Amino acid sequence: MWILAPISAIASIIAGGILYNYVSKQDSGTEKMKEIAAAIKEGADAFLKREYTVLAYFVAVVAVALAIFINPIMAPTYIFGSVCSGLAGFFGMQVALKANVRTANAAREGLNRAFPIAFRGGAVMGLSVVGMGLLGISIVYGLTGNPEIILGYSFGASAMALFAKAGGGIYTKTADIGADLVGKVELGIPEDDPRNPAVIADNVGDNVGDVAGMGADLFDSYVASVVAAMILGGELEMAELLGTEQIPLIFAGLGVIASLIGVAVVRVGKKGNPGKALNFGTYFTCIVFAALTFLVTYLLGINIGIWIAANIGLLSGVIIGITTDYFTSIDRSPTIKTAESSQTGAAINIITGFSYGLISLFPPLLGIGVASTTAYYVAEYFGISGLYGISMAALGMLSIVGMIVAGDAYGPISDNAKGIAEQASLSEKVIEVADRLDAAGNTSKAITKGFAIGAAGLTVISLLATFQVLTKAVSFDLMNPLVLTGALIGISVPPLFSAMVMLGVSKNAFRMIEEIRRQFREIPGLKEGKEGVKPDYARCVDIATTGALKELLPASVVSIVITLAVGFIGGIQALGGFLGGSIMSGLIFALLMANAGGLWDNAKKYIEAGAFGGKGSDAHKAAVIGDTVGDPFKDTAGPSLNTLITVMSLVASVFAGLIANYNLMTLLGV
Amino acid sequence: MWILAPISAIASIIAGGILYNYVSKQDSGTEKMKEIAAAIKEGADAFLKREYTVLAYFVAVVAVALAIFINPIMAPTYIFGSVCSGLAGFFGMQVALKANVRTANAAREGLNRAFPIAFRGGAVMGLSVVGMGLLGISIVYGLTGNPEIILGYSFGASAMALFAKAGGGIYTKTADIGADLVGKVELGIPEDDPRNPAVIADNVGDNVGDVAGMGADLFDSYVASVVAAMILGGELEMAELLGTEQIPLIFAGLGVIASLIGVAVVRVGKKGNPGKALNFGTYFTCIVFAALTFLVTYLLGINIGIWIAANIGLLSGVIIGITTDYFTSIDRSPTIKTAESSQTGAAINIITGFSYGLISLFPPLLGIGVASTTAYYVAEYFGISGLYGISMAALGMLSIVGMIVAGDAYGPISDNAKGIAEQASLSEKVIEVADRLDAAGNTSKAITKGFAIGAAGLTVISLLATFQVLTKAVSFDLMNPLVLTGALIGISVPPLFSAMVMLGVSKNAFRMIEEIRRQFREIPGLKEGKEGVKPDYARCVDIATTGALKELLPASVVSIVITLAVGFIGGIQALGGFLGGSIMSGLIFALLMANAGGLWDNAKKYIEAGAFGGKGSDAHKAAVIGDTVGDPFKDTAGPSLNTLITVMSLVASVFAGLIANYNLMTLLGV
Repeated sequence: MWILAPISAIASIIAGGILYNYVSKQDSGTEKMKEIAAAIKEGADAFLKREYTVLAYFVAVVAVALAIFINPIMAPTYIFGSVCSGLAGFFGMQVALKANVRTANAAREGLNRAFPIAFRGGAVMGLSVVGMGLLGISIVYGLTGNPEIILGYSFGASAMALFAKAGGGIYTKTADIGADLVGKVELGIPEDDPRNPAVIADNVGDNVGDVAGMGADLFDSYVASVVAAMILGGELEMAELLGTEQIPLIFAGLGVIASLIGVAVVRVGKKGNPGKALNFGTYFTCIVFAALTFLVTYLLGINIGIWIAANIGLLSGVIIGITTDYFTSIDRSPTIKTAESSQTGAAINIITGFSYGLISLFPPLLGIGVASTTAYYVAEYFGISGLYGISMAALGMLSIVGMIVAGDAYGPISDNAKGIAEQASLSEKVIEVADRLDAAGNTSKAITKGFAIGAAGLTVISLLATFQVLTKAVSFDLMNPLVLTGALIGISVPPLFSAMVMLGVSKNAFRMIEEIRRQFREIPGLKEGKEGVKPDYARCVDIATTGALKELLPASVVSIVITLAVGFIGGIQALGGFLGGSIMSGLIFALLMANAGGLWDNAKKYIEAGAFGGKGSDAHKAAVIGDTVGDPFKDTAGPSLNTLITVMSLVASVFAGLIANYNLMTLLGV
Repeated sequence: MWILAPISAIASIIAGGILYNYVSKQDSGTEKMKEIAAAIKEGADAFLKREYTVLAYFVAVVAVALAIFINPIMAPTYIFGSVCSGLAGFFGMQVALKANVRTANAAREGLNRAFPIAFRGGAVMGLSVVGMGLLGISIVYGLTGNPEIILGYSFGASAMALFAKAGGGIYTKTADIGADLVGKVELGIPEDDPRNPAVIADNVGDNVGDVAGMGADLFDSYVASVVAAMILGGELEMAELLGTEQIPLIFAGLGVIASLIGVAVVRVGKKGNPGKALNFGTYFTCIVFAALTFLVTYLLGINIGIWIAANIGLLSGVIIGITTDYFTSIDRSPTIKTAESSQTGAAINIITGFSYGLISLFPPLLGIGVASTTAYYVAEYFGISGLYGISMAALGMLSIVGMIVAGDAYGPISDNAKGIAEQASLSEKVIEVADRLDAAGNTSKAITKGFAIGAAGLTVISLLATFQVLTKAVSFDLMNPLVLTGALIGISVPPLFSAMVMLGVSKNAFRMIEEIRRQFREIPGLKEGKEGVKPDYARCVDIATTGALKELLPASVVSIVITLAVGFIGGIQALGGFLGGSIMSGLIFALLMANAGGLWDNAKKYIEAGAFGGKGSDAHKAAVIGDTVGDPFKDTAGPSLNTLITVMSLVASVFAGLIANYNLMTLLGV
């Protein structure tokens, strides 16, 4: 029956191809628009090419290490994982680069013409992520029949995702902060003004950070959740509970089908509300998933506990998404109060937003906790391992990832469309349509972002269970000093990583700002917008690219090295504690940074809409500072943390056998 | 032999009395100075009176609950603990209120005349904290012979400390931010200018927040570390290892003697460096403690493992202090780079400072981890329980707390002295001397602050061990879903608490700012400094007081309620995980907020000293915003977190028996 997985994966890839075709066929507008789109594409391709070149070396080194120390089969599987992840990101970005300009052009004919282009562009990404991910898993599983080998595939995808997220995140914020600080703040020119030398780099950033990076991130969580459930299921099979190893594949396949249906039903009328359409698509997909899995559970006689566990995961994903939405939504109390506090200056704005960010941790962490406990005990109640229940909850949460990514990638596409419309000097009315598309993206993004973090949380918990099963550790007892020390070191790694990438952003933004200032100073007529005078866009693209590549490696490598160091020095117990600690603080900072960042952004927008003095007031200036602080929080450090904790968990699981045999503590006889 | 504890405690109180006498005998200067000092004293006394009134109700309610649900003896012990803690804070503050004006007056005769007054004023606080703490423990132990009853004493001290810290912290920052934003930023008048209506409230804040609050905080950690070690030692005694229950008392007594000697040796010459003198005192006290405990260990034939464990704690306290110093020190790279980044605006200043704050977590967390592992295995190697080793390490770290508090309380005294000198319009030269005294306070504060957090970390770990021993839980296994869920909820409580007190500050500061603006607007001649025109200081003092009392209760009560809710719903396992999680995130945020806050403060000072454009430059304005963000971080939320996690641990231990018998999970048969 698990053949359902590759079949639906292939169906998903084919559907993606059809939508790709649909997007390509659309008209890409005026010469000016084509020119801008070409410049963005050129910058994005250049970045990806250089990034992938650097990563190729890294992948090669790790593959050799895996072949020597772990298992010769691990090396090609690892490479396969990183290639699949890279391809999914690459395809998704290619279509986004086509969809942006076409959406802008269609916006001239109205919202209901533009929306499907942006959404289907995003859907290509979503469908290729789940399609490639599940197909890859199926291939490795079909060839080896051993879920532990798929860990290598997952590790490859994960390492790739870490670089894509961190690199893309540094890139996008370097360009964004640079463009804003010099353009909007110093010179008072509008966002996306073609005179700004960093404007193309800023548009490129949306694609390499928000599209390619985000796709790689969810690819990674998705694959990891399936693998973890398969390994835990495999252990159960040994206990003669048949099918538990392959059920994750079946459920994942049904999730892909649900996403396909969900993508198909999303549409919006002439006067429709695109935000509602996106959310409807998400909820509809959930219901289809619940129904399909119930049917199959019934038909195949699968233990009903597994179905309940998976759907507990899905339900809690939705709840976490909705609570996250409360804390960042523009019409809710946290955002309004933060906006209000801006009247007393930037410092109070930041303290207030940061405080609400801290409060926003409570509901999702409680949600993840309750979801895992419930899934655990339900599974046990129905006679299955509780840890398997948790892993199925994680898989359930991630099952609809195709739809989630589709909605998420829609955001940067419409953001880009708006940018292109402004740079190509399209009419006010067109820009307004583009603006509405963009705003809808932000609404759906809040829910899906909470979803993604919740899913990552459950996934790493099930990876920790996998690590325990693989190492045959009886427990990770907090009162064992090795576990405790591991945990204390573990909690400090996500903050360390965040700091390194954020310092990367601020260093790189510094270079970018110097360059933008230089161009405005040295290129005659640029500031005044003289006909025919163009800034040197390529130079800014180059600064963002070089800087991002320079800053992404140390943070990522340090995290992997610390994981291995803790393992080889402290042994399995210390490493278990370390993973537990890193999950805790990874979740804390991922949620805090995503939510505080989103809140500051919306507080600024709330003021811009006219409250507390509106644009140009002191409150607005204060809110702009808060928003700029939030930029690397929500778009660089925060979203990389999901991936970071997944990578650390996978490194630990892949090296578990080696570490169990060779570590200092065993050597010392502790 | 444990009689050493009460004897040295009484000696400490007597020495405190002698120093109090010394300070009182000094001249308190001109009429103007006396008048200012009287206003500060009046405000501080009024706050404390109102705070203690509110707390009396709280203490009464909790005492009744303890008597009914736990044990009738617990109630008076609990009240005794809160009274002792309150008295130590009260005495310390009284002498600080005398020492400030006398230090200012002596500054007219030079540094070497002023320093001893400020330092001995602080020493009264230090000696009364350890004296009252240890005497109280000795009395309860002498009367009951049961260390578990002392938990009630510790709980009383702890609850008191939480209120004192949170209330004092909100008070001091309300006044500080209000005074700065209107005075320095809006009107451009200097700090501590007598025209500013909030200037007296600001000076009062130093006393109620930094003196009384800090004293209560360390009183709390100190008592908890002794109690935890005694309980764990008592368990060992049952295993026929004699003396382990009373050794903590003996070591604590020796620590008091070491502090007495340390306080006696601190002095500074005419051209001397007061910062160095303070640090020398700290190091000297450590050496005396190590030597004294070694001697007694040898003479009484105490297991050498215990001595080593205690001194590992002490040593790691010093190391943690020094690394903390690196991240916040004005002449080190993190501060200088943050100052440099201010040139690109407030947002980059904040991102940079926050990032270094995140990095600064790594060394102390590693230090706490390594210290506890080493203490554990050393103890085990010498045939004692490893957990007892950890608790002795915590006790060792806190043994010199008398000296630590002395150096810490010195800070706000000299800060106040500087304020009085400025308000009383003393000469430039006098202000310069006061400035040097103040700067030395900041240097020693960085080291002692790291020390305090490290000590709190080890103490709560040993309280967790106590909780485990009292509940006879076999383990707190991270893979147990109840432990895991408990941990996920636990990690979200310290951020929630921080957010509530910080929002309290920003709400209250808002009211204060409105009032200051009103006074400048409505009192004729105030802004111009017309002879005889005085602002309404009392009104500002009242706003700070009322607001602080209103804001401190919810945060504190919520934390205690959540702790009990997790226990009564999830049972012992969930509560163990909860405590573990709250320790993790409590340490993260305590360190982050203390260090980032200190760093922003010094980055601003670095610019004020002339770098990157100096005072009044754009970089300076950006750095002022960073500093204001850091204010509630480092002086309100951050320092309360130590106390918070101690309170939560003690609540859990005190209610452990009840929870073990009555909780939902047991009811459900899970």
